[in-house]
Amino acid sequence: MKIGILGGGQLARMLALAGYPLGLDFVVLEPAPDACAAPLAEHIQAAYDDEAALEQLAQTTERVTYEFESVPASAVEQLNESLSVYPPANALSTARDRNNEKNLFRELGIETAPFAEVHDLAGLEQAVSKVGLPAILKTRTLGYDGKGQQVIRPGDDLEVAWRSIGRVPAILEGFVAFDREVSIIAVRSLSGELAFYPLAENVHQEGILRVSTCLRQDSHQTLAEDYARRVLEKLDYVGVLALEFFQVGEHLLANEMAPRVHNSGHWTLEGAETSQFENHLRAILGLPLGSTAPLGHAAMVNLIGDMPETRSLLALKNAHLHLYGKAPRPGRKIGHVTLREVSADELSAGLSRVHKILE
Amino acid sequence: MKIGILGGGQLARMLALAGYPLGLDFVVLEPAPDACAAPLAEHIQAAYDDEAALEQLAQTTERVTYEFESVPASAVEQLNESLSVYPPANALSTARDRNNEKNLFRELGIETAPFAEVHDLAGLEQAVSKVGLPAILKTRTLGYDGKGQQVIRPGDDLEVAWRSIGRVPAILEGFVAFDREVSIIAVRSLSGELAFYPLAENVHQEGILRVSTCLRQDSHQTLAEDYARRVLEKLDYVGVLALEFFQVGEHLLANEMAPRVHNSGHWTLEGAETSQFENHLRAILGLPLGSTAPLGHAAMVNLIGDMPETRSLLALKNAHLHLYGKAPRPGRKIGHVTLREVSADELSAGLSRVHKILE
Repeated sequence: MKIGILGGGQLARMLALAGYPLGLDFVVLEPAPDACAAPLAEHIQAAYDDEAALEQLAQTTERVTYEFESVPASAVEQLNESLSVYPPANALSTARDRNNEKNLFRELGIETAPFAEVHDLAGLEQAVSKVGLPAILKTRTLGYDGKGQQVIRPGDDLEVAWRSIGRVPAILEGFVAFDREVSIIAVRSLSGELAFYPLAENVHQEGILRVSTCLRQDSHQTLAEDYARRVLEKLDYVGVLALEFFQVGEHLLANEMAPRVHNSGHWTLEGAETSQFENHLRAILGLPLGSTAPLGHAAMVNLIGDMPETRSLLALKNAHLHLYGKAPRPGRKIGHVTLREVSADELSAGLSRVHKILE
Repeated sequence: MKIGILGGGQLARMLALAGYPLGLDFVVLEPAPDACAAPLAEHIQAAYDDEAALEQLAQTTERVTYEFESVPASAVEQLNESLSVYPPANALSTARDRNNEKNLFRELGIETAPFAEVHDLAGLEQAVSKVGLPAILKTRTLGYDGKGQQVIRPGDDLEVAWRSIGRVPAILEGFVAFDREVSIIAVRSLSGELAFYPLAENVHQEGILRVSTCLRQDSHQTLAEDYARRVLEKLDYVGVLALEFFQVGEHLLANEMAPRVHNSGHWTLEGAETSQFENHLRAILGLPLGSTAPLGHAAMVNLIGDMPETRSLLALKNAHLHLYGKAPRPGRKIGHVTLREVSADELSAGLSRVHKILE
């Protein structure tokens, strides 16, 4: 069976790597000529809203998924006329708009940081009085890796902030003094079968994920699964969903969701019995889900910007290199390393060794 | 870096799957249009001795390896003029001729079954008197999966046997009443670094490998490593080498070697810290070798002939499906399943479940 993927970046690449052993083939629709998934898939090089290209994708594949949430709604609509696109369109329209996303969480009884919609400068002033400062002004759509965000502190000029995000529809989110950032990778099959990976603790720097560590037996696991289940079932979801939280004491405040395989789940490649990539494919095909049990003590470190000393990384016992075939560029994710160790102490030592090489 | 592979079957496919995460790209030279590695590599469709195709391979890649031992010597010679082919040509010329192979073992003090060269019918008669019956007449070259072999029992007509293998240069091997068939996957890097996987026990039926089980702590491990080291160092070998033995009590009788990744090492995909495929690539690139430590209790079951109920296989906890993208055909290896369990008992139960599905 041939699977279509909108987007040909590293997530598409890792989906293909996970899918060939299941007997699948892949076609990616991606405008960039040097897409890093292209060497291991057919590559339709066109814009995501190119109707002829979408028609070609629909005719050559049996199921379509995507690797980013800003897929044009019109593209999904066109594809849905002749085949099935998963995760479903309502998940996409929810996830690509921070306001819709937050309202869904609220509606489902999932805690969030205080937030308010912002349509204009006057609205921003109202939002500040409602949410308080410090707060973060975030564009409703098209933000990722810390882009489209502006921190506002007491005394800051609101007009400058409003201009800095481009005067587009936004939300203002109150600052949360969180203990940790955690995320859960959840998966729901076409058959309705559910599976959840252990929570991961995530460390961001400059808005970009740096390290995710699998939390094997965390006291927040049950609550996170409960929240994820509410979202999956409400949206009649199919595929992998990532749900990010701020953990504050016993509380989990939902920050955002991603209707796709997610960077905070890359540790599952060596750290779980079945990777998030394989389970996403199983889910959208209605196949039985694979075990999400953790293997050993696992973590993932992103490789960002420069190409590291790969020889040194490969010399580390229990480290696994995953390069994406992308040219190094400041701030760009060009790969990651997963570590799987026999104990938490060994994992901590392994992470120190990786960080030392990346310094 | 771009790696060339002579042959585009499942071994090339699994090398590519292991190599992309290392940042490698792949080109396969393979005459079949529907080569199962083709969807995930550039495909030069030509005969292995096509000089123009070999020139194209040499110009687009930086290192070449192969997935089968009957690669024409002339092809390797031509490629070696402009780049490096690993494993080295002497390993290839040894492995593709059973007589050379057995003589190498003998020269290195590695025990074998009794054997004798056969050039003609008179030679066969002499070989029988030397080796005894029952015995197996095997063509010196081009035999695999039980092809090119003829069992001779007392009273059998030697001329019929000689005709049945096509009257080509052969060896006669005495029958060995072995306890088990085992193999070791060994690897030697361009830098001289050595690594050995745990022995695997192999079960064949009709000359085709059916099941390989990782032997975590077998008393023959040291002897097997010693024998493998002698071969690796004698041949100044680079890459993965598989060495198959008959185990008779405390003895290991070398049966044959394969200068490539090998079916009896497929269990390493989930059953070892680093797979044989990744370590073969690391070796031919002179990169540090990855850990060969076993993970849990692992085994591999080949999928031969018909496509099994893949849905049932996927529903098995701890089973991992590896399909090759090949059309089912009697006697054809179309995939395998690896199992990784927490104990020998669990592995035995898991194997029973797999066999039940494949019945």
